[in-house]
Amino acid sequence: MKLGRISVATPFGPVTRLVAVDTVESRVIDLATAEILRLQAKGATQEAAQRFASAIFPGSMSAAIGLGDIFLETAHEAVQARADDASTATSSVNWLSAIDPPVIRDGLTFVKHIKQFHERIGAEPTEALLEIPGYFKGTPFTAVGHDAEVPKPFYTDYFDYELELGYIVGRVCHNLTPDEAQRAIFGVTIFNDFSARDIQKLEMKIGMGPGKGKDCAFGIGPWIVTMDEIGRLDDLEMAVRINGKEYSRGDSAETIWTPGESLAYMSISEYVQPGDLFASGTVGNGSGLEIGRKLEAGDVLELEVSRIGTLRTKIGPPEEKRWWPERRRKFW
Amino acid sequence: MKLGRISVATPFGPVTRLVAVDTVESRVIDLATAEILRLQAKGATQEAAQRFASAIFPGSMSAAIGLGDIFLETAHEAVQARADDASTATSSVNWLSAIDPPVIRDGLTFVKHIKQFHERIGAEPTEALLEIPGYFKGTPFTAVGHDAEVPKPFYTDYFDYELELGYIVGRVCHNLTPDEAQRAIFGVTIFNDFSARDIQKLEMKIGMGPGKGKDCAFGIGPWIVTMDEIGRLDDLEMAVRINGKEYSRGDSAETIWTPGESLAYMSISEYVQPGDLFASGTVGNGSGLEIGRKLEAGDVLELEVSRIGTLRTKIGPPEEKRWWPERRRKFW
Repeated sequence: MKLGRISVATPFGPVTRLVAVDTVESRVIDLATAEILRLQAKGATQEAAQRFASAIFPGSMSAAIGLGDIFLETAHEAVQARADDASTATSSVNWLSAIDPPVIRDGLTFVKHIKQFHERIGAEPTEALLEIPGYFKGTPFTAVGHDAEVPKPFYTDYFDYELELGYIVGRVCHNLTPDEAQRAIFGVTIFNDFSARDIQKLEMKIGMGPGKGKDCAFGIGPWIVTMDEIGRLDDLEMAVRINGKEYSRGDSAETIWTPGESLAYMSISEYVQPGDLFASGTVGNGSGLEIGRKLEAGDVLELEVSRIGTLRTKIGPPEEKRWWPERRRKFW
Repeated sequence: MKLGRISVATPFGPVTRLVAVDTVESRVIDLATAEILRLQAKGATQEAAQRFASAIFPGSMSAAIGLGDIFLETAHEAVQARADDASTATSSVNWLSAIDPPVIRDGLTFVKHIKQFHERIGAEPTEALLEIPGYFKGTPFTAVGHDAEVPKPFYTDYFDYELELGYIVGRVCHNLTPDEAQRAIFGVTIFNDFSARDIQKLEMKIGMGPGKGKDCAFGIGPWIVTMDEIGRLDDLEMAVRINGKEYSRGDSAETIWTPGESLAYMSISEYVQPGDLFASGTVGNGSGLEIGRKLEAGDVLELEVSRIGTLRTKIGPPEEKRWWPERRRKFW
């Protein structure tokens, strides 16, 4: 099943809705609406059906996933029963980030990207990459969905994209083995880890991970493909287009760590949450850094992954610069 | 005002409650209970009063702060009206982390700690620290409150504490100036950035910030002191005790960046949330690393800050090791 989040205008303001995506018929099915119709046909009052449907299909995809198996089971039943009565054409949909993750984590697992990235910056990879599946954490509050506009940050001269797979966690994970962790993955989406390369370089000197280098935006979408539907994860083909022109192709083969190993590591001593997103790190050829292309205002970026879809983002003009720190005097 | 979160046992399982803390009378006041009594005296039915009180005083402190000024105004009114009828002795309280932050950020701002830390590790600080108020992000799902037990992570031989101030954000912050950011701070608490030094060192080589080095636990509490009550932030005195013995003292003087500057930087291109916690970085003498003391199972750690209180944590035995990554073969 393909699952997404959309925003719908109402007389009381915009409302977030969970939808199933039917790519064959180019339509989305409003899950709560379909479920209300299904329940009413089984004797529920409209009020009770609404109460039940909004508990199973709230606006938060993470909250829905947090309900466990009943979420996906009910989604299948609702779509099977009443898809035709709860559909909207995909063309008229206002997409939100496919998941609203409590925590975003992002690793570095694709062998080809690691080689190419380090050739480009003229440095050898650290052997620590071979010891642990390290990762950084991003703020979830700049996540955007398909067809969003992302302002080029005012503080960067090198705005870049990173084409990645985003794995969505299905359960609370704590001290799992890789096998257990693999089974705890709910689905996969396209993840764009936007990067401001110049400030990222400065932040890396401090050693606390990226802040302004990454947290300006994360593209997530267009929808989540559940694990039973996506099948294998190591044969996905990927393409990057800017303004309609293909700039690079890659695939999901050859990683240092499997998704299950990455998630198992993340779960050690922590409580990874249902709806958390952890990303694969950039696929080979998946960043502008590898091909010498910077993003500028006006660019339209498309990241395509086979069996998932295409995540499109428009780069907008910078926001106004209101403040930036001035260098302090050396005190040592 | 001092505000905290506690867990209360009920016939239907544990419930999280927001409380005001009265340190003079050694009691906590259940805010929803006091508000229900106040509303009933003004003509509300019990059901309506409960509905209103649970909307203003939910279990989530972040959600309460997200309501804006009405949260603190109503808390004052409720306490003033009915504190005596909604009180419990502090001694019998089960504390939770004072805040449930959507995002935890933690910087490095205390001049004395930066000097001492780098002397200890035998390296010069990076000048990048003088250019930007860098920070890392921690997972909020291992936050614990006063009197919690934290297992020593099984993967570390050097478990450490870091005594810090934790600032609680009061509003959505986006591209703020330092003055605006300073006014957006809701209150301050004690923050213990537990650290596994050996794995932290390995993770720093990867350059993506700490994962297992920090996310095993964050101590937050015992309560939040609002900005109007705490007054100045640069004259707080701090002490570290382990098993009752004082190990070090510090103070909050001399930072590279003010809290307002740190928050302004965090807000650039991001949306910092109400209830987010950002920490000051370790105060001088605030870590075991500076004095050669490691935490071991059985230790009782107390971090005291003047005008706030004492945050106590017991170090427990390690959890079972179920998996740890094996080193991969070099591929470059």
